[in-house]
Amino acid sequence: MTRPRPLVPRGDPADTVKVVGEFGVIDRVLAQAGTARAAQVGPGDDAAVLRTPDRRVVATTDVLVEGRHFRRDWSSAEDVGHKAAAANLADVAAMGGVATALLVGLACPSSTQTSWLEGVAAGLAAECAPLGAAVVGGDLVAAAADSASVVLSVTALGDLGGRAPVLRSGARPGDVVALAGRLGWSACGLAVLRRGFSSPNAVVAAHRRPTPPYAAGPGAAEAGATAMCDVSDGLLADLGHIATASGVVVDLDRAALVRACLEPAGPLQQVGSALGTDPLAWVLTGGEDHALVATFPPRAGLPVGWTPIGQVRKGRRPGVLVGGQAAADVVRAVGAEGAGHVHFG
Amino acid sequence: MTRPRPLVPRGDPADTVKVVGEFGVIDRVLAQAGTARAAQVGPGDDAAVLRTPDRRVVATTDVLVEGRHFRRDWSSAEDVGHKAAAANLADVAAMGGVATALLVGLACPSSTQTSWLEGVAAGLAAECAPLGAAVVGGDLVAAAADSASVVLSVTALGDLGGRAPVLRSGARPGDVVALAGRLGWSACGLAVLRRGFSSPNAVVAAHRRPTPPYAAGPGAAEAGATAMCDVSDGLLADLGHIATASGVVVDLDRAALVRACLEPAGPLQQVGSALGTDPLAWVLTGGEDHALVATFPPRAGLPVGWTPIGQVRKGRRPGVLVGGQAAADVVRAVGAEGAGHVHFG
Repeated sequence: MTRPRPLVPRGDPADTVKVVGEFGVIDRVLAQAGTARAAQVGPGDDAAVLRTPDRRVVATTDVLVEGRHFRRDWSSAEDVGHKAAAANLADVAAMGGVATALLVGLACPSSTQTSWLEGVAAGLAAECAPLGAAVVGGDLVAAAADSASVVLSVTALGDLGGRAPVLRSGARPGDVVALAGRLGWSACGLAVLRRGFSSPNAVVAAHRRPTPPYAAGPGAAEAGATAMCDVSDGLLADLGHIATASGVVVDLDRAALVRACLEPAGPLQQVGSALGTDPLAWVLTGGEDHALVATFPPRAGLPVGWTPIGQVRKGRRPGVLVGGQAAADVVRAVGAEGAGHVHFG
Repeated sequence: MTRPRPLVPRGDPADTVKVVGEFGVIDRVLAQAGTARAAQVGPGDDAAVLRTPDRRVVATTDVLVEGRHFRRDWSSAEDVGHKAAAANLADVAAMGGVATALLVGLACPSSTQTSWLEGVAAGLAAECAPLGAAVVGGDLVAAAADSASVVLSVTALGDLGGRAPVLRSGARPGDVVALAGRLGWSACGLAVLRRGFSSPNAVVAAHRRPTPPYAAGPGAAEAGATAMCDVSDGLLADLGHIATASGVVVDLDRAALVRACLEPAGPLQQVGSALGTDPLAWVLTGGEDHALVATFPPRAGLPVGWTPIGQVRKGRRPGVLVGGQAAADVVRAVGAEGAGHVHFG
């Protein structure tokens, strides 16, 4: 098929989706996509076909809405791609899987610059590539007539490599609660950006591009983890899901949590002093770092990358405690705004 | 976890997402979801896990935007669910697969009535159930602050049951072009609704809930189809994709197409006369019925549900002809607005 020559140069402000057209944009976006190792049929047909040697596939979807989950003035297009991929890849890891492919549904105004969409595609590809995954399909449509905002829906598929999936419901009294990855960095970065600053760079970068500990998920599954989830809504909220699903009490060791997340002192303390915020608030309630939390049988050694932060106990009411104290009281004491996101205001 | 009693009765106009809250809405939506036969782990964890005995999985995504792909005053919530599912399930069928599961990303204003979302979930479930598929995961988020419109991104997964996927690129000169399913009904129904009417019901219903011939996809794959796709953008546009990908000319037999799609005379002629439209225009360029088109080797018998409508020929320029005439000329002659949708206006 012969395509018309572009009317405006690449990167020109007038180089929008409207000018380039759906198929032209898809061509340019797919040039960024890379190749999924598992793909038998990649993008461009009615559907993709992926190899699933394990005879099972892990599947999860996350939606990012402009202005709610990202802002174009705070995050580059590449950042948005990284973040959208990371949220999904972490969910696959939290089942004990390794992501193999993404599918991306994107609604955007026709005034969206094509180069911005190429940047998102490049970010998605870069986040996936170390795992051997890539975007294998998707759909690009015009946003609603009443909206100038981008909506990005990403589905990740993954492989369990023969391992049993690690659910939220398997935690047992006596299990060790452990953490892999960072907590509070993204929330701290968001607090910085909200006040109009852009440093310290380490926390702002963490907000823009989370760095989930992907390998720790399959590692925990191999080591016999009894329950696992990723921290997307905040540690207390997400451990609350494990406590509820397992019918147990998760009792966090405050000193261990401080050692794991706040020592040695770094940018969280620095920003905390500047803003008058106890950095433990970000650790307990900040989402979007996509750390993993899991429970392990008491006598199993923790695998590489995991640090103990508490214990699973019996209890009349499933829930999360910090040093035996109700999570809500601790949250109030450290001055956090609440346990996890409220998604509909 | 104890949930608070609802503040307003179900179905009350005040029974919105904002009032019920994310987790309450998810509970109610999941009550409609049914069970996917292939699910090892269903909704409620970080990700779903599906069995893929074929060692491959088919995957496709389609996005529906309120005001562009559906209108709440023209379609019920159940209709929207049926339509969103059908668009994806047909893509899986067009590869020769059988759908096993859906994942749904949904962005909606917090004023959305919970019962509307339950209706969408019921429609998705009803469209999937005959195939043994169901919604196994998803994400529900607040729409952008500048938008009162719903965006629905659906990903379908499917199984090939040992069959080779049927691509768009396999058509060979001499192959028979065949059709399964209806063409033009959805476009005719849309023309009726656009003019403020709601009858004849047959075409309006076809617009609201397409009825793709799901079984014809795997049937064609079994019978050795060389290329296949679903008709979502219009027959000429979608056969154009096969022609381009295969490097061939698709020559439609106008009389055969009329026999297959317009005989005996029915609502398309009835509406055509009333509106002064040649119903062949809807047949050639109307999308969203999700019929399947495929090419078969010349001496293979066509499987059940398939009707011949043309031939594949060699040609200097890949493209679609109708009785040897360029598709664009035929479209002009029948007075259709163009070959397929333009997605960004």
